[in-house]
Amino acid sequence: MLKPLNVGMIGYGFMGRAHSNAYRKVNNFFDLQYRPVLKAVCARSADKVKLFADKWGYESTETDWHKLIDRKDIDVIDICTPNNTHAEIAIAAAKKGKMILCEKPLAMNGPEGLQMVQAVEKAGVPNMVWYNYRRVPAVTLAKNLIAEGRLGRIFHYRAKFLQDWTISPELPQGGAGLWRLDLAAAGSGVTGDLLAHCIDTALWLNGPIASLTAMTETFVKERKHTLTGKVEKVGIDDASAFLARFHNGSLATFESTRYARGHKALYTFEINGEHASIFWDLHDLHRLQWFDHRDEGQLRGWRSIHVSDGDHPYMAKWWVPGLQIGYEHSFVHQVADFLEGLAAGKPAQPDFRDAYRTQLVLDAILSSASTGAWTQVK
Amino acid sequence: MLKPLNVGMIGYGFMGRAHSNAYRKVNNFFDLQYRPVLKAVCARSADKVKLFADKWGYESTETDWHKLIDRKDIDVIDICTPNNTHAEIAIAAAKKGKMILCEKPLAMNGPEGLQMVQAVEKAGVPNMVWYNYRRVPAVTLAKNLIAEGRLGRIFHYRAKFLQDWTISPELPQGGAGLWRLDLAAAGSGVTGDLLAHCIDTALWLNGPIASLTAMTETFVKERKHTLTGKVEKVGIDDASAFLARFHNGSLATFESTRYARGHKALYTFEINGEHASIFWDLHDLHRLQWFDHRDEGQLRGWRSIHVSDGDHPYMAKWWVPGLQIGYEHSFVHQVADFLEGLAAGKPAQPDFRDAYRTQLVLDAILSSASTGAWTQVK
Amino acid sequence: MLKPLNVGMIGYGFMGRAHSNAYRKVNNFFDLQYRPVLKAVCARSADKVKLFADKWGYESTETDWHKLIDRKDIDVIDICTPNNTHAEIAIAAAKKGKMILCEKPLAMNGPEGLQMVQAVEKAGVPNMVWYNYRRVPAVTLAKNLIAEGRLGRIFHYRAKFLQDWTISPELPQGGAGLWRLDLAAAGSGVTGDLLAHCIDTALWLNGPIASLTAMTETFVKERKHTLTGKVEKVGIDDASAFLARFHNGSLATFESTRYARGHKALYTFEINGEHASIFWDLHDLHRLQWFDHRDEGQLRGWRSIHVSDGDHPYMAKWWVPGLQIGYEHSFVHQVADFLEGLAAGKPAQPDFRDAYRTQLVLDAILSSASTGAWTQVK
Amino acid sequence: MLKPLNVGMIGYGFMGRAHSNAYRKVNNFFDLQYRPVLKAVCARSADKVKLFADKWGYESTETDWHKLIDRKDIDVIDICTPNNTHAEIAIAAAKKGKMILCEKPLAMNGPEGLQMVQAVEKAGVPNMVWYNYRRVPAVTLAKNLIAEGRLGRIFHYRAKFLQDWTISPELPQGGAGLWRLDLAAAGSGVTGDLLAHCIDTALWLNGPIASLTAMTETFVKERKHTLTGKVEKVGIDDASAFLARFHNGSLATFESTRYARGHKALYTFEINGEHASIFWDLHDLHRLQWFDHRDEGQLRGWRSIHVSDGDHPYMAKWWVPGLQIGYEHSFVHQVADFLEGLAAGKPAQPDFRDAYRTQLVLDAILSSASTGAWTQVK
Repeated sequence: MLKPLNVGMIGYGFMGRAHSNAYRKVNNFFDLQYRPVLKAVCARSADKVKLFADKWGYESTETDWHKLIDRKDIDVIDICTPNNTHAEIAIAAAKKGKMILCEKPLAMNGPEGLQMVQAVEKAGVPNMVWYNYRRVPAVTLAKNLIAEGRLGRIFHYRAKFLQDWTISPELPQGGAGLWRLDLAAAGSGVTGDLLAHCIDTALWLNGPIASLTAMTETFVKERKHTLTGKVEKVGIDDASAFLARFHNGSLATFESTRYARGHKALYTFEINGEHASIFWDLHDLHRLQWFDHRDEGQLRGWRSIHVSDGDHPYMAKWWVPGLQIGYEHSFVHQVADFLEGLAAGKPAQPDFRDAYRTQLVLDAILSSASTGAWTQVK
Repeated sequence: MLKPLNVGMIGYGFMGRAHSNAYRKVNNFFDLQYRPVLKAVCARSADKVKLFADKWGYESTETDWHKLIDRKDIDVIDICTPNNTHAEIAIAAAKKGKMILCEKPLAMNGPEGLQMVQAVEKAGVPNMVWYNYRRVPAVTLAKNLIAEGRLGRIFHYRAKFLQDWTISPELPQGGAGLWRLDLAAAGSGVTGDLLAHCIDTALWLNGPIASLTAMTETFVKERKHTLTGKVEKVGIDDASAFLARFHNGSLATFESTRYARGHKALYTFEINGEHASIFWDLHDLHRLQWFDHRDEGQLRGWRSIHVSDGDHPYMAKWWVPGLQIGYEHSFVHQVADFLEGLAAGKPAQPDFRDAYRTQLVLDAILSSASTGAWTQVK
Repeated sequence: MLKPLNVGMIGYGFMGRAHSNAYRKVNNFFDLQYRPVLKAVCARSADKVKLFADKWGYESTETDWHKLIDRKDIDVIDICTPNNTHAEIAIAAAKKGKMILCEKPLAMNGPEGLQMVQAVEKAGVPNMVWYNYRRVPAVTLAKNLIAEGRLGRIFHYRAKFLQDWTISPELPQGGAGLWRLDLAAAGSGVTGDLLAHCIDTALWLNGPIASLTAMTETFVKERKHTLTGKVEKVGIDDASAFLARFHNGSLATFESTRYARGHKALYTFEINGEHASIFWDLHDLHRLQWFDHRDEGQLRGWRSIHVSDGDHPYMAKWWVPGLQIGYEHSFVHQVADFLEGLAAGKPAQPDFRDAYRTQLVLDAILSSASTGAWTQVK
Repeated sequence: MLKPLNVGMIGYGFMGRAHSNAYRKVNNFFDLQYRPVLKAVCARSADKVKLFADKWGYESTETDWHKLIDRKDIDVIDICTPNNTHAEIAIAAAKKGKMILCEKPLAMNGPEGLQMVQAVEKAGVPNMVWYNYRRVPAVTLAKNLIAEGRLGRIFHYRAKFLQDWTISPELPQGGAGLWRLDLAAAGSGVTGDLLAHCIDTALWLNGPIASLTAMTETFVKERKHTLTGKVEKVGIDDASAFLARFHNGSLATFESTRYARGHKALYTFEINGEHASIFWDLHDLHRLQWFDHRDEGQLRGWRSIHVSDGDHPYMAKWWVPGLQIGYEHSFVHQVADFLEGLAAGKPAQPDFRDAYRTQLVLDAILSSASTGAWTQVK
């Protein structure tokens, strides 16, 4: 008999859908000891939250998150709200002893993130941050290959996350669906939204970053603000790039932007090691590119691995070889891993502390972009 | 308020999972008037069907499909059993006035398919066959482009479906998971299993086939039979290819095999028209390749369209541009279209009669492969 | 000291340029005992042939090929004229004891080809046919891999050669640059022009074809004839496809056309063996795709081999790894191999007899397309 | 009648071959007023230079470059020697009134480059530097598209040049074929060897760079020196990367290394503009990737343009559409453009002054890598 795990979700935007879908599907495909129950969803608009609850099968709704975290029938609080609300909710929920699953980035900045880490660690509650790309099977396969030492000494790490959706100056900032363009809500632009993903993956695959030098740019300086109705200065960074040195001696380039025509969500990373190299691309997330110098000389070439076989991470749970899964499955895998970790007493990663380390890199980027100097990551 | 539509599914293998997943998800993403309810699942083993029902949330189970089709609380019968059982079940269910969703291929052969068509048409029950690849957004986009006349006169159609999972002579035939290798259960080998998909798509995109000449081959002549435990002659075709002429004057090549090393489920099609060409590949199902000769000369090239934008078929229902969906979503779309058709009184395709036309092509292939002669499709 | 080998070339069109370029370059890159000397070029127009000779450095010109083959200072006759002149020239040149390099296809048909074979064999003169694609390094690498048995039993061979340059009905037939559209000059359409290449490669890589069934089509039925100025019936085949069985038991599909929008010269072949598969594409001729099932399971994938390393066929002679060569180099390699064969007393292939075997397949295709029946290749 | 232009080349290594090949071919394919004559080649070893002259058809040899530049029968001096000899030879040759074609990078550093510029400008002699990649047809096409304003405002430029040939610590430094690893001969490592190419292209396509911040690394700290036989400190940079801001406001990332497993000569660049984006890759140099946001929404995609049509830059001179050229042809194009410029009185680019601007960027990179600070490009 599966143990129910009652979820209370706050926010119902894009991520609210992605998480809800994951909760609903995970037990159909994974053999687990726990079963997520969609107990309640919370948002300010009573009408809208009711509609969402109906669509996804939530048993109840709330319009005040304080009430939600007070409820005895809620085991897990899932935070899907804008970045500037994460800390307050998470710290309060931790005090109530709730497990917490928080959207990324963890916080508005490092110090705020540290408070959140201290809150969950003090409360001793299981916690996790939704850096979902770790759970794309091809990315997990990359992690396994690196962990087995197959690449040898690492020389280079290279990541970028390119989009093109904010090029038009007519696009407003702020408000529903556009809070990512509002500095007050988001904390930063592409640095926290896109580079955060690249950094989470990089720290996982290649260890800590020692130092970096960064630049940021805001291409469109003013936009109408949806909430005030006025044309206001744009505070976020439209593009952000940095050079870095990892503790393991490898060099890195990172870049993100929302001004790269032709790329919708082109998150790519490449790692060059002494013996082998790896490349991955979110636009074809079911493939991993692998080059192994130990292959016979005349037959060396980049292998395009269709990560859909039963011996690939997570894939035995899905369909048959050759049939691809998509973006949403990374969330299902993350829920599955969280539930397995819960059952085994081994928390799944990345937890708040992991995500705090990413936050420190984000702080270093913004600081370096401001000073122009190489900056140590704390 | 959504109207419930009670589903009774027969069989719980690979397709049982794919369909169940679609029923469970469709209302989370599509705005419909109907809501599928997982009322009952039926299979011979009481234990196994119970496990399946628990995993997927079916309300009840049956072990005899006759009982299932007798139940008053069932609106739709979903047939996911081996091919040699489709006709009997479908005809009986039609007599009981049930709607029928039947896995492909419709029947063991054309005459049997015709009986099924006559049964559902006589009963006047909504019916559909799970040729799911029509609902991959890139394939639907291809259909739209063709329907708008953008390709001009069609010269060539080219399809193949390549797999490599039966190369080992050690693989047995027959029994659970392997009935596709057993002539008695499957009716044919790759012709009915793989070419059937290629043909359904082709008839949809390019109209009827006039005539064809085919060859088939069985590379591994004998295999141990799982049910009898003896080494027995293999009756199915391991590979099947044909040349064809469509009614519209275009020429075609079709090929399928389970002996193409390196291909897991490589269903591809290409259409060459006077003005433009289209290519699609199931291994990267979220992309459509498009070449338009009307583009400026020096800038002509095959466009790799990442079919994930809001203006692409079905995609506004899912995530955001750049984030891909996978194989399973084609089934969700098919359920959505069926339910919309039900509400609108316009049945979704392909129905039994469409699938019967595919069956006639399959018959012509097997006949031609036997005689060596060009054969008219009836 | 290099021995001079005096070349007399007949024709100065596209192939005349490709061959001349090869003769001029070969000694710069290959260490050989012979050195081709551009002794004479022959064509009907005295003015035009003089211009060509100046451009390419030919020492003299002729306007009558009979005179050319009579010249004592000519060692090799290179035939670059339309197909319907190959036999007469080659047979006459053989009688004069000249070595002969003949453009493909060898002849207008099998019987004519046989006469040419008999002529060169009787005269005992070195002879070769310009099926240049064998000498693309990636194709030679494919040959080596197959010859070493790395693919195991072969199940499938699949080739196509797709172009799109004759779709416009305004294009005339016949005359300079367009003789390939004129049945009288070409003997057939894409069958002899394009499929001939596919067949030469296939016989080399996969051995003889046992039987086949073919279809051909002429999409544009009438075109203005450049020579007569009148609209005349088009006699050539615009498209040609066939199914085949090789002697080694493998199945094949072949297709060629000049009506495939988006493809300029898309010659591709794929071979599926028990252990491994190979794919090659003329549009990216410097790459070979290789899939090896013996690779570790989770890391299997198609390798894109950039055939530009020193251990790849011919490539040590050119630049450095990563820098690609192009189409013209296949001719340089063929000249180099011819000269090496001459020095070693081991004639290079394909010779007239090899090309005659290809001619027999072409005859079988045209015959089968006419009768609709499976046809044995003689 | 073509005017002869007598070439005297110094050095006969890799570049000596590439240039000689270009001189020999250019008049076969291009209609020009000048004809390069391979008058003399010069190198220290009398035996080796004689062998080279025989292989390539040079009329004479020299072992002292001072004698070569003194010869009255030499019009052009082509400098193919290591970087540390460029300035002395070029300045001396300019004084003798010779035209000068110099391998890249122009000089060991900016000040040296400036002396060379002043020398050729004072002497008024035609001069050019072999940044050959500008003449790859796909790259020239990119230039044309940008010059026509098709990209609109430029937001991003991204280039890298990745190799993997110096990973082994066993590889020695210095001496024939390895002088690029010797700081004294090369001036820098990948910065001058590889980034120089990226920068030349970037300045041409995107205008001047305003400022940058760089990092360099030497992964293998000591190597045996071929000339001394001792293990010595490695002075060159193995990897070099920088962030930059162009005068036009666009942001850039640049990276080069010889430690990227799987890449032989992967020079790529991408430009993202308001309306369109461009991508190019030296490993498939005959293709240009083009994305145009003005395409119809549902059909937008990256176009893979096979740059082999008659309306593509330079391509009308070669074969037929679909047949690719290779690396060496970029040199043929550069010679053709130089000769056309000579005839027209419009010097071809890049000349010494253009290459000097690239040199200033190289200086800024090395300076910034040393100080860690953002550095203005002079």
